Amino acid sequence: MNLPTPYLLFIADAPHAKTAFGIRDWRPELCIAQMRYPASMLDLDLPDMDFDEAVAAGARSVLLGSAPAGGVLPDRWLADLERALRAGLDIVSGLHTRLNEHPLLKPLAKALGRTLHDVRRMDDRQFSIGQFERRPGKRLLTVGVDCAVGKKYTALAIDRELRHRGIDADFRATGQTGVLIAGGGIVIDSVIADFVAAAAAELSPAAAPEHWDVIEGQGGLLHPAYGGVTLGLVHGSQPDAMVLCADPTRETIGDFDLYPQPALEECVLRYTEAARLTNPAARVVGVSLNTSRLEDGRATALVEETAARLAMPCVDPIRTGVGPIVDVLMTL
Amino acid sequence: MNLPTPYLLFIADAPHAKTAFGIRDWRPELCIAQMRYPASMLDLDLPDMDFDEAVAAGARSVLLGSAPAGGVLPDRWLADLERALRAGLDIVSGLHTRLNEHPLLKPLAKALGRTLHDVRRMDDRQFSIGQFERRPGKRLLTVGVDCAVGKKYTALAIDRELRHRGIDADFRATGQTGVLIAGGGIVIDSVIADFVAAAAAELSPAAAPEHWDVIEGQGGLLHPAYGGVTLGLVHGSQPDAMVLCADPTRETIGDFDLYPQPALEECVLRYTEAARLTNPAARVVGVSLNTSRLEDGRATALVEETAARLAMPCVDPIRTGVGPIVDVLMTL
Repeated sequence: MNLPTPYLLFIADAPHAKTAFGIRDWRPELCIAQMRYPASMLDLDLPDMDFDEAVAAGARSVLLGSAPAGGVLPDRWLADLERALRAGLDIVSGLHTRLNEHPLLKPLAKALGRTLHDVRRMDDRQFSIGQFERRPGKRLLTVGVDCAVGKKYTALAIDRELRHRGIDADFRATGQTGVLIAGGGIVIDSVIADFVAAAAAELSPAAAPEHWDVIEGQGGLLHPAYGGVTLGLVHGSQPDAMVLCADPTRETIGDFDLYPQPALEECVLRYTEAARLTNPAARVVGVSLNTSRLEDGRATALVEETAARLAMPCVDPIRTGVGPIVDVLMTL
Repeated sequence: MNLPTPYLLFIADAPHAKTAFGIRDWRPELCIAQMRYPASMLDLDLPDMDFDEAVAAGARSVLLGSAPAGGVLPDRWLADLERALRAGLDIVSGLHTRLNEHPLLKPLAKALGRTLHDVRRMDDRQFSIGQFERRPGKRLLTVGVDCAVGKKYTALAIDRELRHRGIDADFRATGQTGVLIAGGGIVIDSVIADFVAAAAAELSPAAAPEHWDVIEGQGGLLHPAYGGVTLGLVHGSQPDAMVLCADPTRETIGDFDLYPQPALEECVLRYTEAARLTNPAARVVGVSLNTSRLEDGRATALVEETAARLAMPCVDPIRTGVGPIVDVLMTL
């Protein structure tokens, strides 16, 4: 991947902006400014700029900072994206909608000599189905009770902590934001379904015995819409260690109100059972809670209570750091 | 789908020809002839013809009758496929390799006014992610211990038996051969991974309460490479009934010698556990064994033994018919 940076982060009127926050947190040097619509409730703590101002400040691309439902480009953003192209910016997108097939943006970009970067486009990639033999090296996969609970953040934090301790490690990105942060990886939910496990295997190839690949998880095994992607990622990753990520304030699966959040205990059992098909030593080594919606006392109590209940380390990567989980990894 | 029929079935030197045998068995009226290379060990019991003869006999397309490893077009077939186009035939393909992107076949077909039909191409289709609420109507999904064990055949046989009994039923195809037999469906392993469950939901939409959708299964939940596709299909299909299909003569997963065949009992447990996420009433109602490699006495004994051991009907669709399983469906 060779994307023109730095970025103007485009939030517009999006209610969430996971991609923009992820890039800002983990690659701040790539972020010049944000562009929000007046009613936006979000704030990246970056200067607000329009396209011309951002270009003057050095921006080379506008990065779509949120993923609307279904990954579809909202028509109401089109006028602004046209202005961005005319101002001299490329567009970097992690949407399912392919900007390179868009009836307005594609010809306009071509006429202006701009490039549309569809980082999620993976369907032209084929992956060879190997024998799924055990690959040398150690692998950690973050797994989720649900989507958007901190799997990427937890993996990045564990990768950083391992490196701080002098351990050879690589963060392996599997989502569009992770790929933009790492500058490479495979957007696993956009691969042709037949190749998910093979793509996951290719993403964390054979390595030195003490090397850790820290793989960003996707979806949730007990998620009605995305369980299949998750299972393919688990099988292909062959994780030695899994870290279960959850948002303890949720009662139902995000956007799927008919489905209750499964219990942590059930997730531990089911992920372990699934992972042992390709790695009989696989185990869940810890829990990572996103307690951002809880006040301090309640969050601390919940982290301690969860550790005791599941008899394994429990952390919140932001409040407590991931040290207790990395302590376990050092023993594997 | 609007494919030019009838077909010349192209077997060439393929060691297996699942697609050709499937079309011949279930849509014999579409099959004019076969074309085999001299060393071929396969025989569809159809006249052997070259391209010109087949055209003279009324064929409008040559259908690639086998799926080589990885779904890739072997270069050694190219000269013949060029001759087929020049003889006036379209090409119908269920390979992952897209004939419409092939550097030789694409321009030649265009120059000759022929069409290349890539029935497996699904990546340009998006499927809307709904709420995964229970859909009215009844659904049966055939599920497998492994790939290529009779899931399609079993589903087609059950669909036919239901119709014979006057029950309103539809066969829902999820693989390239099934789609060619049914004249429609979704090649589920070729969908973008994110959309597998949504595609499965779209394939068996809400129906009358007594209507049965009989859905062709894919892969195997305990298959190291394809478990994810299977789980997405299970979740999206919301099966009321599953029929577990197996080849009792296999010791390891096909093409994956490191992985033993899982036990039927384990498969029953794991499929039931998986399916109950989206349909709490889901159950495995019977077993379908492909005993084609066993002699009569051994086959009959094994079918009876399996029924007793698992305490549910066991059939071989070819030797015994699927009546005992359909008897159970009538009680649901």
